[in-house]
Amino acid sequence: MYNSYPSKLLDNAVSEFAKLPGIGKKTALRLVLHLLNKPEEDVIIFGNAIVDLKKNIKRCKVCRNISDKDVCEICSDEHKNKKLICVVENINDVLAVENTSRYEGVFHVLGGLISPMDGIGPDNLEIKSLVERVSSGDVSEIVLALSSTPEGDTTNFYLYRKLASYNVKITTLAKGVSVGSEIEYVDELTLGSSIVNRVKFELM
Amino acid sequence: MYNSYPSKLLDNAVSEFAKLPGIGKKTALRLVLHLLNKPEEDVIIFGNAIVDLKKNIKRCKVCRNISDKDVCEICSDEHKNKKLICVVENINDVLAVENTSRYEGVFHVLGGLISPMDGIGPDNLEIKSLVERVSSGDVSEIVLALSSTPEGDTTNFYLYRKLASYNVKITTLAKGVSVGSEIEYVDELTLGSSIVNRVKFELM
Repeated sequence: MYNSYPSKLLDNAVSEFAKLPGIGKKTALRLVLHLLNKPEEDVIIFGNAIVDLKKNIKRCKVCRNISDKDVCEICSDEHKNKKLICVVENINDVLAVENTSRYEGVFHVLGGLISPMDGIGPDNLEIKSLVERVSSGDVSEIVLALSSTPEGDTTNFYLYRKLASYNVKITTLAKGVSVGSEIEYVDELTLGSSIVNRVKFELM
Repeated sequence: MYNSYPSKLLDNAVSEFAKLPGIGKKTALRLVLHLLNKPEEDVIIFGNAIVDLKKNIKRCKVCRNISDKDVCEICSDEHKNKKLICVVENINDVLAVENTSRYEGVFHVLGGLISPMDGIGPDNLEIKSLVERVSSGDVSEIVLALSSTPEGDTTNFYLYRKLASYNVKITTLAKGVSVGSEIEYVDELTLGSSIVNRVKFELM
């Protein structure tokens, strides 16, 4: 339905919105018509916000989190424990862990999980940079906070093998996180508790 | 939650998305991070689609529907019955009625409903242009297809008084539309049937 619009421009804008995850054609139309009723300045601000973000965003050269500067706010925060690194899949997970207010260390963003099905191997992820951080010798503990999925497990095993030879404690989130769930959707209390009760990583 | 982002640019983009109807902070973040993972060209196309729409869209000078040209596709379609005008609140309603494939006439988009609570009076709507179309004498029937709400009823009454003196049949949608519902969310079958069974407008 709604496959013939009175305007190519409208059709175009609706198609672009409908590409977003969880947004169908009907919702896309509602969003576009909402914006169409706004003053032109507001629409330009909206359009530019996302383009500016994409053009100007940087990756922190330490942890690969997104940042406005070369080194992100978390890595340059002197109250953070730099010897403690939490390894996460993506930026959402950094925000999720930070929001628990129960973690005092820094992060390392892999940018994904090992997934042969999707053609993602260790070389496509920020694993080399993690090993470099650990091999520099200033790290005492690595917390593996990856999703409890087959891809997460595979990545955990791979990282464990890569890091086991260094003098570093490798821990993982407490088994408060339910099996099959994705880190970013876990509620703050459960996630906070699973960080506090993190346990030594062991091959099963 | 999620009130501290690692980047002002990210914060900005998320805030803009969160202004859209039905999009909360968490969904906004998901959409923004999705776009952030796309190639830069795609993000620019997305940002421009909505700005181009807003800058270049026109209002049809006949029916006030949105259009790429001075006269919209519906008004310039020679298969449409120009003597039959369906009066609707907004563009969504034009699309909804067109999608039923049960209506052969043209439209008139009011751009809203009379609502003293929101400070919208008859002069804020495209009522004068509708009266001009009717007074030109080429119109045989006006179908009032406004939402079945207090504002819709008020607007129906006002239009009826304005148009009753002209030699034109005034009809309204059959009472298949449930009371309290908005036109754009009615399913196609019900809406199509209510157009076919439209009845003469009568003051209650």
